Amino acid sequence: MNDLTKSHDLVTNEALVFASKYFSNNDINEWVHSKGIPAQVEDAFLSSNLGKYCRPIEYGGIDCDLKDRVTLIKVLTYKAGATLPFLSDILSMTLASSLFEMSKSNISRGFISSKGTISFSEAFTEANAGVTASQVQTSITMHGSTPILNGVKTFVSGGQFQPHILVLAKDPFFGDNDRSQSLWLIPSNLKGVETLPLNTIGQEMLAPAILEFHNVRLDPEWRIETNGNLNSILNKQYQIGRLLICSSSLGLGIAAFHDSFLYSKKHRVHGRRLIDIPQIEEKLSDMITDLQSCEHFIYKTADTLQYDSNNSALECAMMKRFVPRACTRVASYALQIFGGRGYTSSERVGRIWRDCRGNQIAQGTDEIMSHTIAKELDDLDFTNNVL
Amino acid sequence: MNDLTKSHDLVTNEALVFASKYFSNNDINEWVHSKGIPAQVEDAFLSSNLGKYCRPIEYGGIDCDLKDRVTLIKVLTYKAGATLPFLSDILSMTLASSLFEMSKSNISRGFISSKGTISFSEAFTEANAGVTASQVQTSITMHGSTPILNGVKTFVSGGQFQPHILVLAKDPFFGDNDRSQSLWLIPSNLKGVETLPLNTIGQEMLAPAILEFHNVRLDPEWRIETNGNLNSILNKQYQIGRLLICSSSLGLGIAAFHDSFLYSKKHRVHGRRLIDIPQIEEKLSDMITDLQSCEHFIYKTADTLQYDSNNSALECAMMKRFVPRACTRVASYALQIFGGRGYTSSERVGRIWRDCRGNQIAQGTDEIMSHTIAKELDDLDFTNNVL
Amino acid sequence: MNDLTKSHDLVTNEALVFASKYFSNNDINEWVHSKGIPAQVEDAFLSSNLGKYCRPIEYGGIDCDLKDRVTLIKVLTYKAGATLPFLSDILSMTLASSLFEMSKSNISRGFISSKGTISFSEAFTEANAGVTASQVQTSITMHGSTPILNGVKTFVSGGQFQPHILVLAKDPFFGDNDRSQSLWLIPSNLKGVETLPLNTIGQEMLAPAILEFHNVRLDPEWRIETNGNLNSILNKQYQIGRLLICSSSLGLGIAAFHDSFLYSKKHRVHGRRLIDIPQIEEKLSDMITDLQSCEHFIYKTADTLQYDSNNSALECAMMKRFVPRACTRVASYALQIFGGRGYTSSERVGRIWRDCRGNQIAQGTDEIMSHTIAKELDDLDFTNNVL
Amino acid sequence: MNDLTKSHDLVTNEALVFASKYFSNNDINEWVHSKGIPAQVEDAFLSSNLGKYCRPIEYGGIDCDLKDRVTLIKVLTYKAGATLPFLSDILSMTLASSLFEMSKSNISRGFISSKGTISFSEAFTEANAGVTASQVQTSITMHGSTPILNGVKTFVSGGQFQPHILVLAKDPFFGDNDRSQSLWLIPSNLKGVETLPLNTIGQEMLAPAILEFHNVRLDPEWRIETNGNLNSILNKQYQIGRLLICSSSLGLGIAAFHDSFLYSKKHRVHGRRLIDIPQIEEKLSDMITDLQSCEHFIYKTADTLQYDSNNSALECAMMKRFVPRACTRVASYALQIFGGRGYTSSERVGRIWRDCRGNQIAQGTDEIMSHTIAKELDDLDFTNNVL
Repeated sequence: MNDLTKSHDLVTNEALVFASKYFSNNDINEWVHSKGIPAQVEDAFLSSNLGKYCRPIEYGGIDCDLKDRVTLIKVLTYKAGATLPFLSDILSMTLASSLFEMSKSNISRGFISSKGTISFSEAFTEANAGVTASQVQTSITMHGSTPILNGVKTFVSGGQFQPHILVLAKDPFFGDNDRSQSLWLIPSNLKGVETLPLNTIGQEMLAPAILEFHNVRLDPEWRIETNGNLNSILNKQYQIGRLLICSSSLGLGIAAFHDSFLYSKKHRVHGRRLIDIPQIEEKLSDMITDLQSCEHFIYKTADTLQYDSNNSALECAMMKRFVPRACTRVASYALQIFGGRGYTSSERVGRIWRDCRGNQIAQGTDEIMSHTIAKELDDLDFTNNVL
Repeated sequence: MNDLTKSHDLVTNEALVFASKYFSNNDINEWVHSKGIPAQVEDAFLSSNLGKYCRPIEYGGIDCDLKDRVTLIKVLTYKAGATLPFLSDILSMTLASSLFEMSKSNISRGFISSKGTISFSEAFTEANAGVTASQVQTSITMHGSTPILNGVKTFVSGGQFQPHILVLAKDPFFGDNDRSQSLWLIPSNLKGVETLPLNTIGQEMLAPAILEFHNVRLDPEWRIETNGNLNSILNKQYQIGRLLICSSSLGLGIAAFHDSFLYSKKHRVHGRRLIDIPQIEEKLSDMITDLQSCEHFIYKTADTLQYDSNNSALECAMMKRFVPRACTRVASYALQIFGGRGYTSSERVGRIWRDCRGNQIAQGTDEIMSHTIAKELDDLDFTNNVL
Repeated sequence: MNDLTKSHDLVTNEALVFASKYFSNNDINEWVHSKGIPAQVEDAFLSSNLGKYCRPIEYGGIDCDLKDRVTLIKVLTYKAGATLPFLSDILSMTLASSLFEMSKSNISRGFISSKGTISFSEAFTEANAGVTASQVQTSITMHGSTPILNGVKTFVSGGQFQPHILVLAKDPFFGDNDRSQSLWLIPSNLKGVETLPLNTIGQEMLAPAILEFHNVRLDPEWRIETNGNLNSILNKQYQIGRLLICSSSLGLGIAAFHDSFLYSKKHRVHGRRLIDIPQIEEKLSDMITDLQSCEHFIYKTADTLQYDSNNSALECAMMKRFVPRACTRVASYALQIFGGRGYTSSERVGRIWRDCRGNQIAQGTDEIMSHTIAKELDDLDFTNNVL
Repeated sequence: MNDLTKSHDLVTNEALVFASKYFSNNDINEWVHSKGIPAQVEDAFLSSNLGKYCRPIEYGGIDCDLKDRVTLIKVLTYKAGATLPFLSDILSMTLASSLFEMSKSNISRGFISSKGTISFSEAFTEANAGVTASQVQTSITMHGSTPILNGVKTFVSGGQFQPHILVLAKDPFFGDNDRSQSLWLIPSNLKGVETLPLNTIGQEMLAPAILEFHNVRLDPEWRIETNGNLNSILNKQYQIGRLLICSSSLGLGIAAFHDSFLYSKKHRVHGRRLIDIPQIEEKLSDMITDLQSCEHFIYKTADTLQYDSNNSALECAMMKRFVPRACTRVASYALQIFGGRGYTSSERVGRIWRDCRGNQIAQGTDEIMSHTIAKELDDLDFTNNVL
């Protein structure tokens, strides 16, 4: 139904093969429960062809199109029926690639383990700032020549498990080129760093944590030299984050559609197949239609982000406003099609619904997106524009 | 905001007092986790004044108006922020009251424990029949003069814990007056009865279970003599069930509104209170408006059900179509107001949202309600009717 | 379906009788086209029993409950399937009643014609102020001892036809007790008064006009002495306006339901009645359910406004936010049920849909209601409130 | 915001130039009122470069991509802010192109006037059949060797003005290869042909009519020889019709957005620009986002229809389900942003809203699309499909 380019076909097929081999329903349930993917599955992924889409070029990765990463996340998530940690891995990998060259070589090693896996968590979000970088309260002060870090970060994916932390801080000392903000890659086991797991109502495999920094003494060498580019690096990172979150939502939505579609063809009430009952029929129609519109929106936006990233802010925000809401609706319809059965752990649709809902909040809530869109619009001149 | 009659005031206040004393957030979390309320809380409830609204008159209960039971469920659920087992208790109590006189005295003792608590679970729902009684597959056969029960029931609240089970079965032998169906009150520990807990994505305290009956030998004395009234008894029971589920939804919705309203007044973003941000303002307005319309609908329907129960089927179905959807929307708005925080266990809104969603399925899905309404409508003559 | 009190029954029946006699589809079409009701119909109405509900007591009216006026508007509008000028007449009559005693007797005669009909239009709304009184720009200046009126009013119902105009103006001279505003009842044929008809996309019989005042010289005697009560008079008037507009919306919604319900029972596609096609069935269910919830909301609010008018602002705003949106949705569903036929003048549903939509704007848009609700909420203490 | 290919740019610019020259607001209002475009404007259009996109190749047209026709309709409709008769002209032109070679040369001349304009109306739709060809009731009988036509067609665009009519009829005599249906191009002035204008609530320039055929005697030569291809010709025609209707909806939506966006930047309430009021901001965000998703959907579907037309039925139905609903919502938001002003003829948004609504019915209602989607889905195997 989609114009499958060769590359899209390739990624799709490899992802389907990988998922068929490694994702059983029982495994997924187990991983959700234990909040993560076993090391051997992650290793298998990285050493498979798919790993190339997620590794920096320096570590054997390929310089692929964003659309391939979209496809990868979409297909794996669809097969898992759950938000996968690959989502944050790919995101971190993209960021690491941008930061590699800027960092002292001894620092940049902290981004990637010797196996080629991501070895840091992104500590950007704060409770009162959301994803708005300018509102960050975590800050650097100086004690003699020693930078001291204080503050609290939240929704740090994998924050309890990664050996390093990438921290964004308010910093009047080193941040002069970057609107008084700086970026640090620090070891997780420093004195004064505390991590607390967050119990969420979904997306468990992302293993989000609260990270508290109490007078943490930093080595000035740990600072990433961002040279006035911090803002544009963060903006691009947020946009890619929105793209991948939408891809994950789409994968979840397809899973919900897929399960309820097959159930509707098989299951009968009063002798009729569910799919022949028009209330169900209408739901399935709207689900596939919504998913189709999400797919169009995501791939189009991936193109803009890849080839015209200076003009992608508005499109990314529109996509992020549009896709997660639509996919939550799709999942909620699926839940309704399954009836009582969908409300239990016998089906994965309940989990999909909870996971989808989280994406209306993650990486900028629906409301923040609305505000972002309006601000971008205000600067445009639509006098003679035809979209 | 509501015309508080004396009786409504009384129940409200007593329920608030009781909840303040017994419902702490920690307790509720604990009870959700352990899928039930501790015996001492249930005892305290029954021996309080509130117990009178839930006990049969024969056991010291009062002959109260349905609106008082609506209020009771609404207020307790609001304070708990979770679906309470009192919901199914009151429902079972109503049914027990109807069945008391019909049953042999030695049987009717199985309905209520010596303490005055409900001691049976309602095994009515089946996977392929939903709440539609006519589709029941569980059935009675005869082995000599011994009735034999076979079948599977699902979503039996408290099915693992109650000493007795009230089973609805297809029955060509004893059910001749009742469209070939009969009702049995049997001990739970019979040979061939198996109970399996259901893991749901919400409403954990209802402790729903699957009950399987494999060639269970019954004593003919255990049958309730329904004398051709089974259908009307079940219909009334379903209608009361819909009323109380809507009351529970309303309580959950009020809790979601309450929490997010207070949070919006206290919490600030960029120096502004959340409630002063118009996207939030609009959500809160729609939440309170929706809750108000639900409240009007529920109390109006309680009146009809109390005083004109022959004509309440349409109204109950409309209420059940209207209220749970509206309350899920309210809870989802609340979740969005809390942002990331609402997606964690730091707030009760995530649980409320999951609980609300279940009520769009329980006691007849939104879709079944739609069909019920249309069928009732078709029989009416609206030629000159003004609602 | 509604608790028909005697009075409700009486009004309903009389209104049905009147409508059957005077409202044919052809007549209504004609009146919509000519933007008004013929004098003989208005006379018949006033001299019927129904007239009593709309005349001041001084002119033979009765001191009826607001609910009776709700019923009157609802039933007449339902039968007409169009917004009726009685809506603004009753509204003006209520205002006139409040202002009678405050006005010099020679002035108050301008409110009512000798026949007992309303003889003034309400010139309150301005383009940039909406219904917000505090934003009024039309103003009084003094030329010697002569008050001079300048400004532009819009959406003045009947503004072209009534012999008098009731104008709200900014007034630093006489308005000192009333936040610098004053109210004047002036002849329509004064020099400097210009009226322009407004072409609207619906509600044609209200005959809204733009009124421009260019240096209009006033007689100081024409001022209504409001003694510091102007604000509360206007507030009450706006609340009653919201109530009656919602009643009119409900009447339109019932008409849309009624027509499409009968059509669905009669009309067949592929041999099946429309009402048996579940997509139609679902629409009809939601329509009747929405109408029912609107009816509950309106009558409940009428009660509060009648008996506790100091606390009715929040409820009126919630009702106004809720009802017109719901009724537009009902009308839009009806349109969809009729298909192409509904998009033509063969049915009245297209007109109903356009009329309904206007009520989401009239007397305070949906957005203003949302803001009003939030402001009222903010002042309340919901800490322990159960709605 | 859209990947403007050269061809898209070209069409867009030429359409903008043409519209600037010929579409003034006054003209459009006038044309809506008189239900059509003046001959000289139509001539100017045809003799401009744009005419090439709408003329058959035989008459100087170019073999352009469907996307160019989408763009043409979108841009012209956006500038007009009204449904244009070019919509049905292009549609008829496409059909004529398919039928040219099948028809006797003396017949095919009836499709196009000597000026190159369309000279027939499409009489396909019937009141009880909608656009479902298999339900057609208009039929051919034989009187000796003379075919006799009887039946009633509705929503025939331009049916009153075109010199020829293309009629689809049930036909057991000549229709044996085509499921007992045949297609005839007949003169409009035959005895027994009656045309009645339809008064619609929008889309006036399409000038829809009812065509009644009372024992109309036909010349057998007037039959188009469809050779078993009638069904596939009609299917393709319906799909192109859906594509162009969606393009027209999109153009209307862009016009509504455009007008309300500019108004929000210019107009102030209480000193603030409307666009800075977050309720407005949120509406504008959702409008542009919805339009963007429609644009993606339409161009993607145009591609499939152009290059893979055997597999375009599902996509066309999804697009038709998705786009008109979204655009009506956009127009309704615009109306709300304008407030009272939008409800009058001072703005074109009221007309846009009415026009948009019609597209949820034309060429297959939302409900029929839902059913079509579900049927197409049922035949697909989604077992391993990733959309």
